[in-house]
Amino acid sequence: MSDHEIFELGDVVLQSGATLRGATLAYKTYGKLNGRKDNVIVYPTWYSGQHVNNEWLIGRGMALDPERYFIIIPNMLGNGLSTSPSNTPPPYDRARFPNVTLYDNVTLQHRLVTEKFGIERVALVTGWSMGAQQTFQWGCLYPDMVERIVPFCGSAKTSRHNFVFLEGVKAALTADDAFQGGWYEKLPQKGLRAMARVYAGWGFSQAFYREQLDIKRMGYASLEDFLVGFWEGLFLVRDPNNLLAMLWTWQRGDISANPVFNGNFEKALAAVKARAIVMPGQTDLYFPPEDSQYEVKHMPNAKFLPIPSIWGHFAGGPGTNPEDVKFLDNVLKELMRS
Amino acid sequence: MSDHEIFELGDVVLQSGATLRGATLAYKTYGKLNGRKDNVIVYPTWYSGQHVNNEWLIGRGMALDPERYFIIIPNMLGNGLSTSPSNTPPPYDRARFPNVTLYDNVTLQHRLVTEKFGIERVALVTGWSMGAQQTFQWGCLYPDMVERIVPFCGSAKTSRHNFVFLEGVKAALTADDAFQGGWYEKLPQKGLRAMARVYAGWGFSQAFYREQLDIKRMGYASLEDFLVGFWEGLFLVRDPNNLLAMLWTWQRGDISANPVFNGNFEKALAAVKARAIVMPGQTDLYFPPEDSQYEVKHMPNAKFLPIPSIWGHFAGGPGTNPEDVKFLDNVLKELMRS
Repeated sequence: MSDHEIFELGDVVLQSGATLRGATLAYKTYGKLNGRKDNVIVYPTWYSGQHVNNEWLIGRGMALDPERYFIIIPNMLGNGLSTSPSNTPPPYDRARFPNVTLYDNVTLQHRLVTEKFGIERVALVTGWSMGAQQTFQWGCLYPDMVERIVPFCGSAKTSRHNFVFLEGVKAALTADDAFQGGWYEKLPQKGLRAMARVYAGWGFSQAFYREQLDIKRMGYASLEDFLVGFWEGLFLVRDPNNLLAMLWTWQRGDISANPVFNGNFEKALAAVKARAIVMPGQTDLYFPPEDSQYEVKHMPNAKFLPIPSIWGHFAGGPGTNPEDVKFLDNVLKELMRS
Repeated sequence: MSDHEIFELGDVVLQSGATLRGATLAYKTYGKLNGRKDNVIVYPTWYSGQHVNNEWLIGRGMALDPERYFIIIPNMLGNGLSTSPSNTPPPYDRARFPNVTLYDNVTLQHRLVTEKFGIERVALVTGWSMGAQQTFQWGCLYPDMVERIVPFCGSAKTSRHNFVFLEGVKAALTADDAFQGGWYEKLPQKGLRAMARVYAGWGFSQAFYREQLDIKRMGYASLEDFLVGFWEGLFLVRDPNNLLAMLWTWQRGDISANPVFNGNFEKALAAVKARAIVMPGQTDLYFPPEDSQYEVKHMPNAKFLPIPSIWGHFAGGPGTNPEDVKFLDNVLKELMRS
């Protein structure tokens, strides 16, 4: 019993040169593909998230309405459902899982969309965080196919500061001897919990904590309850090698790091023909609005529209703050009408 | 051979109820105490820093001019020179070192200033980061003694967000099995290096990294060179139990958490009679300007003056950016003239 489908990719040669044999993309679709195949929305996943964790933005009466649209959520490689360290057979399993890039992810998603469904036009690509990075990558790799993009709380290129934040996350996870260089038989609990605590300061803003929204809005009994109940709980159910595989993808995230753009970031941004609304979180500590402004400046058809929120990175997801969801949903609705 | 003096405190009962027997404050003085004893500056240390790491703000022709002032730098408890986990004899040594508060630190510093030197007036208390917290504490505990305070890049009360940031630092350090619950014989290298990497994202701002000031201004060859050469180098020479003792002090930092103010934070702020200039770093990620604004609002004689810098927390020290030092020094000069 599974709530998702599997697309068989065959043997996939990655940018790194490794071959993922019998690779698969797990995905789920919502709604029906219409006859003209022009009601398609692609909605990639975020760091450590899976398709179910994207569903908060989908619903009847919402912009992403399955009554109107055919919504495809492809799971990112490494997230435990698509080909990942945790589910790949030897010899490319676990700590030996190869490096996967943003480009790898999106070109394989493009295969799913075209080969499996015969789709030639995508009405919208949207996503949160690493999902936003995939959104940008869709926009510049397939400019004649993608009509609109709304990347939220994410960037087209991982900033140096964001890279450093992730170095801290990685170092905390791997400091635990139980990690065993990735060849653990039991979960490195201390490392996962340490990683969660490191992440906690980054995920929400200073103002979020100042206003005690962890207690007053999210319902935790205390700050420590939030750190254990929300943050440690979030990461303890994840596989460490999967987390590190996706982290590698994130750290090197760059829509121009591929044969199409050869590292020319501005050229990649300029290639996005889609009507774009770039929506950083106003108080996001690792995808700050300044980086979005730079991106929008180099995109021909883009608008900069921060989410006015003190929820930090979580202004964008995963449905944590109803006001932010409403703001985002309204922007998506207006864009889809155009 | 030592470059500092030792003040014998005798047996000290801490707020926690523990007794530090034969406790000492290490300190260093610069310049000469004049006959009227009215040329005194107290300049406490910061997290993991020692008196030598404060000297960048002292110099002929600077505001803190030893030709004019008698400058006392008391080393914070736990910093390895004053009584600390690393230098306390059993049974209160190492992992058993008791919890020390901000109030403990400042009341003991007050003993040094009054008992050792017979000083009754302090022209200025100033300090960076945790040094700023001690500065605020001086101001409210000894309002009739302290004439001016300039806390920079620090707060009068550790915010919840700052607490969470430090939880991440602590978790990274202690995730290393070599830490052995504080009973290590060899340094937990992985933990110290992990802690350093976690700290790296917090210490400097997003803009600092965006502008590559680690390379262009600080002279590191690459981002990784900065992470190893600067950050890991900074913490590898520190004792882990000392770092955790000071971290505890920081996490609970609150100028009102004592018998004088009984947790009434606004009352403690209102008690500061000194002419105050509160100087957050404009881009400090863990002591953000908003917290300083709140403090200034509740202080009767205070001015809010952010340091206009993209150097994050390091806008305030330790002498890392010459422009910021100049800005700070000019403010101090003007204040000392008044």
